[in-house]
Amino acid sequence: MPKITVEWPAGQLDPRRVFDLEQPRIEGMPIHPSHRPGYLYALHRRHNDTYGQDGPRSSASGMIVCMEHSGTHIDALCHQAGDLTLFGDVPVDAATQTSKGFTQRGVEEIPPIVAPGVLLDMAGHLGADALEPGYAVTAAELQDCSTRQRVTVEAGDVVLVRTGNERHWGDTERYLAGSGMAADASRWVADRGVLAVGADNMAWDVIGPRDPELGCTLPGHLLLLARHGIYIIENLRLAELAAARQYRFLFICTPLKFVGATGSPVRPIAVVPE
Amino acid sequence: MPKITVEWPAGQLDPRRVFDLEQPRIEGMPIHPSHRPGYLYALHRRHNDTYGQDGPRSSASGMIVCMEHSGTHIDALCHQAGDLTLFGDVPVDAATQTSKGFTQRGVEEIPPIVAPGVLLDMAGHLGADALEPGYAVTAAELQDCSTRQRVTVEAGDVVLVRTGNERHWGDTERYLAGSGMAADASRWVADRGVLAVGADNMAWDVIGPRDPELGCTLPGHLLLLARHGIYIIENLRLAELAAARQYRFLFICTPLKFVGATGSPVRPIAVVPE
Amino acid sequence: MPKITVEWPAGQLDPRRVFDLEQPRIEGMPIHPSHRPGYLYALHRRHNDTYGQDGPRSSASGMIVCMEHSGTHIDALCHQAGDLTLFGDVPVDAATQTSKGFTQRGVEEIPPIVAPGVLLDMAGHLGADALEPGYAVTAAELQDCSTRQRVTVEAGDVVLVRTGNERHWGDTERYLAGSGMAADASRWVADRGVLAVGADNMAWDVIGPRDPELGCTLPGHLLLLARHGIYIIENLRLAELAAARQYRFLFICTPLKFVGATGSPVRPIAVVPE
Amino acid sequence: MPKITVEWPAGQLDPRRVFDLEQPRIEGMPIHPSHRPGYLYALHRRHNDTYGQDGPRSSASGMIVCMEHSGTHIDALCHQAGDLTLFGDVPVDAATQTSKGFTQRGVEEIPPIVAPGVLLDMAGHLGADALEPGYAVTAAELQDCSTRQRVTVEAGDVVLVRTGNERHWGDTERYLAGSGMAADASRWVADRGVLAVGADNMAWDVIGPRDPELGCTLPGHLLLLARHGIYIIENLRLAELAAARQYRFLFICTPLKFVGATGSPVRPIAVVPE
Repeated sequence: MPKITVEWPAGQLDPRRVFDLEQPRIEGMPIHPSHRPGYLYALHRRHNDTYGQDGPRSSASGMIVCMEHSGTHIDALCHQAGDLTLFGDVPVDAATQTSKGFTQRGVEEIPPIVAPGVLLDMAGHLGADALEPGYAVTAAELQDCSTRQRVTVEAGDVVLVRTGNERHWGDTERYLAGSGMAADASRWVADRGVLAVGADNMAWDVIGPRDPELGCTLPGHLLLLARHGIYIIENLRLAELAAARQYRFLFICTPLKFVGATGSPVRPIAVVPE
Repeated sequence: MPKITVEWPAGQLDPRRVFDLEQPRIEGMPIHPSHRPGYLYALHRRHNDTYGQDGPRSSASGMIVCMEHSGTHIDALCHQAGDLTLFGDVPVDAATQTSKGFTQRGVEEIPPIVAPGVLLDMAGHLGADALEPGYAVTAAELQDCSTRQRVTVEAGDVVLVRTGNERHWGDTERYLAGSGMAADASRWVADRGVLAVGADNMAWDVIGPRDPELGCTLPGHLLLLARHGIYIIENLRLAELAAARQYRFLFICTPLKFVGATGSPVRPIAVVPE
Repeated sequence: MPKITVEWPAGQLDPRRVFDLEQPRIEGMPIHPSHRPGYLYALHRRHNDTYGQDGPRSSASGMIVCMEHSGTHIDALCHQAGDLTLFGDVPVDAATQTSKGFTQRGVEEIPPIVAPGVLLDMAGHLGADALEPGYAVTAAELQDCSTRQRVTVEAGDVVLVRTGNERHWGDTERYLAGSGMAADASRWVADRGVLAVGADNMAWDVIGPRDPELGCTLPGHLLLLARHGIYIIENLRLAELAAARQYRFLFICTPLKFVGATGSPVRPIAVVPE
Repeated sequence: MPKITVEWPAGQLDPRRVFDLEQPRIEGMPIHPSHRPGYLYALHRRHNDTYGQDGPRSSASGMIVCMEHSGTHIDALCHQAGDLTLFGDVPVDAATQTSKGFTQRGVEEIPPIVAPGVLLDMAGHLGADALEPGYAVTAAELQDCSTRQRVTVEAGDVVLVRTGNERHWGDTERYLAGSGMAADASRWVADRGVLAVGADNMAWDVIGPRDPELGCTLPGHLLLLARHGIYIIENLRLAELAAARQYRFLFICTPLKFVGATGSPVRPIAVVPE
């Protein structure tokens, strides 16, 4: 297994070693119905407004309105509860859940993530450009894929699963109808003690079906966030990493500390071996 | 000079090696008057709303309204113009400046920053908890400080200057009245070909005075962003890094790709040597 | 022609005499593409949050994000320019057009409207539930309709035209594809010196076609707002008024004084004779 | 007592008979701390952006972010609860209180208000430009004032009380520290069966003190909204009406139907007798 080394000041890092896993943020990008309208940006201060009043210099700036769960983002632990209990037996009550967010398990508690990352290219493994709508990836498939890729998922890893759904980013309806993880796939990563998971789809889980055992939809959200304290990263760009057959890398993701919020837009990167 | 190595899969990174340089984001944090009201977060979807409708699972989420230049953030090159020209001779006109932001030099053009970082602890160097309001740090002081700290600022570096202003984060009026860089300090870093600069104040520059030579306020904004294409990072937390006397580190900062925006909130980190 | 009298303190006004012309405001209501996402409301402060801390009393409140031109609204004169000139030869320049809105012709300049109103029920006149998509109502049709309804449009009137498009409010695509006024219909009302016009569609004008004479789309916007200083009210509910065959009424509309804004959501009412 | 008659089509209404009771909306206007930051408007679409693409015509528009309780506004009944019960024995629970607002007692349930209005000029009555900070107007004072003004408050009336606080609108701290109604003043208006009340201050009530009998602050909010179903209108402009000694008028106020919201910005007007 290759070692990934980032070393200074022995010269600059070759930018070809850095993969950008964030989707660009534009109005109209796919958004889960619960988080509509998702994202908007308005430029209101323009250079011409004040040009001439301060020598040659002028400024421009704008305003962002967004849901935490828009675009490429990470879910904080407070985003999900099981029987009104957050991870670590924190009850959902007036002390923890307020109009300005959560006083525990908010996104500001996520430390900067600088961890070993592994990509499981499930679309590649199953020989598909993108898995079919509603396709539920199983634990066995994750295991087989990791075996074929000769990678082992270990405690502390960040596991990214490529479903190929990313290619439908431009088509909200198709993107939302995409594939995802079965409940046992979430159990499989939880059993390995991973730090976080991510995928190139809206919800990690398949959207829609109810898991018969847990009795809820999006079972991975319950299992990972509420029961195991494992973060979920959604709407990742993974095609370039897969095309380069880079399955092991240094994964870096720094959620913004919106105090009390249930998630944060992020721009994760993968730094690959030389 | 120490080498900074981040290596995988040779075990987990000691979290004590990672310094978090972002201020937590809360309503009422200091904001430049041009960017009021800065930031707000409202939790509207609560766990109790749907609990019982989907087995044990429930969700919560909220909405963020913020200016790009709120809290710890990076300035995109389009944020500043010199004689209505952006860096690289890009004119400010209807083709480049639109209601949804800039079609060139937007924040989405900033690559993930993974670069050698250097801290110049100016407050420590001058023996102050925090530099006086309005104090303008000069090129000579930056040079002296780097000499005393035995660090050399080199091309491609990210240079962070600690003024001590961070300690006034809880007091908007005092924070905004803080110290910053003189125009020649910006020239000094530009001459060295740095990739980006940052400080623990609102504007890198001293806010207020007009530079006689350039004929404008905030001369560093004109020099760095518009003339040299050097990014500016503001409202950094640098006290912990200085207290640990960590002057050389791996600097990581991943601006969100808000397409067309003039900046992005960021959570930069410094990874220090073992 | 009946007189409309509102008289106090001679007893309460019969609520059946008041017609509410505003569409309810909900997320997902039809919006012109230029004004997406239109409208959202988030309740974040809830009664339970503080209940018990202040005796029996508790409060709840939320946040509104909206474009001025969402839902039932009025256009301010600054919304439209002809050759970069606002109504009354006001140039569009850095003095009049700022990041915080217009310094002249903003919506705050519209006085409270308490004026004689007239409804021209064009759908009824043409024997249709709703005019066909793209149908352009002509001046001749307005004239014929007013003749048949035995109403005369006079200076100072507010003229409301019912196209029947209101019935498609629940279907954004169909609603936007609706009917509207031809350029000469706008000229007809302008020639009569009306104070304001309104319709049960998104834009008064037909959306889409370019007027050959004026060389622009939405010719009524140019003619009425920029050239004649006549306000336009959009997305009205007119079906109830038409069903009651109330063609003459007291029209009341009080735009909010969002200083500098280009329009305002409104709730116009019609008070009909006893 | 004079009759107030508004009659059409007997000619235009003299604009001097219409008093505008709304404060202009600008960033930085006084706001209750619970509703910060209150209000902002950003113009992002400008005329120059598209000029030349559509003949002589061009458009401009912006975005509003506001709390329902910013500026001159009306409180919906769901804004306040007594022992977690809304007016009319509606319980505050998951069925009535949702992330998108209330399913009962929301602001959309307020009918257009066209009702007899009465102004009690308490500042004038007590011979003050403005009542002192914290001054609590009593029922006896309302009674005395109405007697002196020779007006009778009757069922269905909208009662506006002028405290003079309006003159401090430009000074948030002073404005918030202003005077208001004592609990028994709210009882006095409730006993008379009024439709709505309003004042030229932030909260009708005095902000701060706890009412010993009810055990809560802002007792009028509990009494009027939660117990009697009487709307409260805040931050009114009443000085012009008082200066004109117009104590009886036709009061018109049309809250926007933000479905589920706890209030609405409004522009109330008073139409006075000829």
